[in-house]
Amino acid sequence: MVGQVKHACIVSVGNELLSGHTVDTNAAYIARQLRSIGVPTVSSHMVADLQSTIVQALRLAAEEADIVIVTGGLGPTDDDLTREGLAEFLGVELELREDLLVRMKEWFQRRGVPMVRKNVVQARIPRGAQVVPNEWGTAPGILAEKDGTVFFALPGVPREMERMLAASVLPRLRAMARCQALAVRKLKCFGAGESTIAEMIGEAMARNRNPLVNCTAHTGVITLEIVATSPTVADAERLAQAQEAALREVLGPLVYGVGEETLAEVVGRQLQRLGKTLAVAESCTGGLLAKLITDIPGASGYFTHGWVTYSNQAKIEELGVPGELIERHGAVSEPVAEAMAQGARLRAGADYAIGITGIAGPDGGTEEKPVGLVCIAVDFEGRIQAVRGQFPWERHLVRMRAAQTALDLLRRGLGR
Amino acid sequence: MVGQVKHACIVSVGNELLSGHTVDTNAAYIARQLRSIGVPTVSSHMVADLQSTIVQALRLAAEEADIVIVTGGLGPTDDDLTREGLAEFLGVELELREDLLVRMKEWFQRRGVPMVRKNVVQARIPRGAQVVPNEWGTAPGILAEKDGTVFFALPGVPREMERMLAASVLPRLRAMARCQALAVRKLKCFGAGESTIAEMIGEAMARNRNPLVNCTAHTGVITLEIVATSPTVADAERLAQAQEAALREVLGPLVYGVGEETLAEVVGRQLQRLGKTLAVAESCTGGLLAKLITDIPGASGYFTHGWVTYSNQAKIEELGVPGELIERHGAVSEPVAEAMAQGARLRAGADYAIGITGIAGPDGGTEEKPVGLVCIAVDFEGRIQAVRGQFPWERHLVRMRAAQTALDLLRRGLGR
Repeated sequence: MVGQVKHACIVSVGNELLSGHTVDTNAAYIARQLRSIGVPTVSSHMVADLQSTIVQALRLAAEEADIVIVTGGLGPTDDDLTREGLAEFLGVELELREDLLVRMKEWFQRRGVPMVRKNVVQARIPRGAQVVPNEWGTAPGILAEKDGTVFFALPGVPREMERMLAASVLPRLRAMARCQALAVRKLKCFGAGESTIAEMIGEAMARNRNPLVNCTAHTGVITLEIVATSPTVADAERLAQAQEAALREVLGPLVYGVGEETLAEVVGRQLQRLGKTLAVAESCTGGLLAKLITDIPGASGYFTHGWVTYSNQAKIEELGVPGELIERHGAVSEPVAEAMAQGARLRAGADYAIGITGIAGPDGGTEEKPVGLVCIAVDFEGRIQAVRGQFPWERHLVRMRAAQTALDLLRRGLGR
Repeated sequence: MVGQVKHACIVSVGNELLSGHTVDTNAAYIARQLRSIGVPTVSSHMVADLQSTIVQALRLAAEEADIVIVTGGLGPTDDDLTREGLAEFLGVELELREDLLVRMKEWFQRRGVPMVRKNVVQARIPRGAQVVPNEWGTAPGILAEKDGTVFFALPGVPREMERMLAASVLPRLRAMARCQALAVRKLKCFGAGESTIAEMIGEAMARNRNPLVNCTAHTGVITLEIVATSPTVADAERLAQAQEAALREVLGPLVYGVGEETLAEVVGRQLQRLGKTLAVAESCTGGLLAKLITDIPGASGYFTHGWVTYSNQAKIEELGVPGELIERHGAVSEPVAEAMAQGARLRAGADYAIGITGIAGPDGGTEEKPVGLVCIAVDFEGRIQAVRGQFPWERHLVRMRAAQTALDLLRRGLGR
């Protein structure tokens, strides 16, 4: 059974965040953790190391959410003002907690590091607040409550924050929230653009639906996130599952995986299952395809040989591409991609091989063969399939799309 | 001359940010860019894809700042609601701009991609607002003003946002703000850790100094950012220059470049200047080194051949590494790295070659040769230099550090 849904707001404190010096990865981390226990984050604010600003942010957060997680500003230096800000917001004084001071002294002693005077301020917390233990650093966290909203103040150091979140914050919230059950699924798609996929799935992405479907695009991979809510876990799961089945029905082979899977991972699993090996021969992608394949731990089980044949001479000498083929069709052509794939397969003694040749830019394009033109071939145990793509973007995106398209061609050829 | 300082607020729109699915790197990027023209960011808010929430965030931002940069929510799908939110906040209707529609149709035509019905909404902007041109995608940006605060709405796709910021937003803000003159320089270092470098440069990093020196670390590259402020541009430049000279004096060959330069870029320039060529032979980095080299446009001028010899057999067959060398020392050893480099240089007929072999993990380590052990050799026209590194991190960091260390070894060998 489920109680009222609680909502969270995240407040990140620190000048280094607002100067752009540091990217705030804490907010995303906390949001993921909260979501995993069914607490949606409704907003996230980044504010400077100023007491008045911190107080303002806490007021705003209290209006927006039932749970507020503050990170940063608990250090020992003069610009660490979360303690002061929280006390002012709560309308209480800071008090020195002797138990914290003792603990802190022991912490330094154990490490053989002298405790400096500055550290003493870290033993001060707002009167009436509770301590969130920090076994991994000097700054204790703080738990306070006001008008039904709970506030957790944690250090900004990711390592300490993450551990305190797991050890103290999440268990408490889980008990407190008795949240709405949530089921989340992600479908990874490749082979069509975001707007095409949005059109295909039609009403599924409409607002205020349950399940909700969100769509994001990154280097050609379209991620559809399905979020279902319901009073019971079983029901939320059922809703998400039904939505996933409906999307898969419409999208067919465009869906290549789930969760955080990459194309290289899926292809690797296919090869492993089939007990087959792969070799690659790259020109314009210059090692990127091999890199994506070997990003996956255990790739040595199916990947043995890669060639980066950046010059024509390398294509001829290392892969046995006939020089007259390059002369007749040009280095960027389907026949050359096919000869590269075939050459790589035969030389490596592999079952499958990929050949890629193209013009990544920014220079080297012609009217007939513009920048972004890429020819890709896959040799499936002697049967060769080739495609030609025109990717109208800058160098690194052309390369990435070419490598991904090659992996996708192989994936589709290998079947489920 | 200096006018009134303007303050900025950043609003990032997107459920994917609040679910923690995507880390918001745009906010930090924008803050850095604004700071470079003397506009401090006072707050940054992340909100969901809900019209009411977007309106609320715009109201809050208008209270806090004179300049508001909104990113995200300009896509073609139903959950893209920044247009609607901005119109509601401004109290006007959205109107279809025929000129934008025409431009959008051309954009698709040029790329030979069909324009779908969904895209039409991207040609709607709030009545009375101006268009911020987007040459790099379909979503135009929007510029609006209300009660003395200016609002820029830009796409969330970093590539498009960054270019629009540079092309349209910053020039306009620069003119508007008449800011304190600022000079920013970056020194890129490789070969020592962040704390070692911090110790070497001593007082230069102390707070409240002018110039200010900030230090950040990313995959082994240490970036020192020098920020000098002064009423005049010439004076700020002079201050930054003097600080740069002082840091270079202390750091010597640790400094490999400036600005956003990568090691691969610097090495590429060295090779180009010397008129020499490079080949690479990779095992554990699996194509990453070749990828880094060919990330640089024009790499074909000095890079011709790369081998990814992931198996022992590939090392023997493709590079001529003696099998007994592998048997005697193991595949991960200096002698094998040296033989790989030499084999690559001779086969490619190149002037220089790099060989890398190591254990990237997570599996494959032994007591004697743990995960993270990497052997790197550079063959300088027949003179071979080898190093052995132990990188105690996860797979992708081991691979990245190995590739960077190899490039650095080559850079130092080639001289200025």
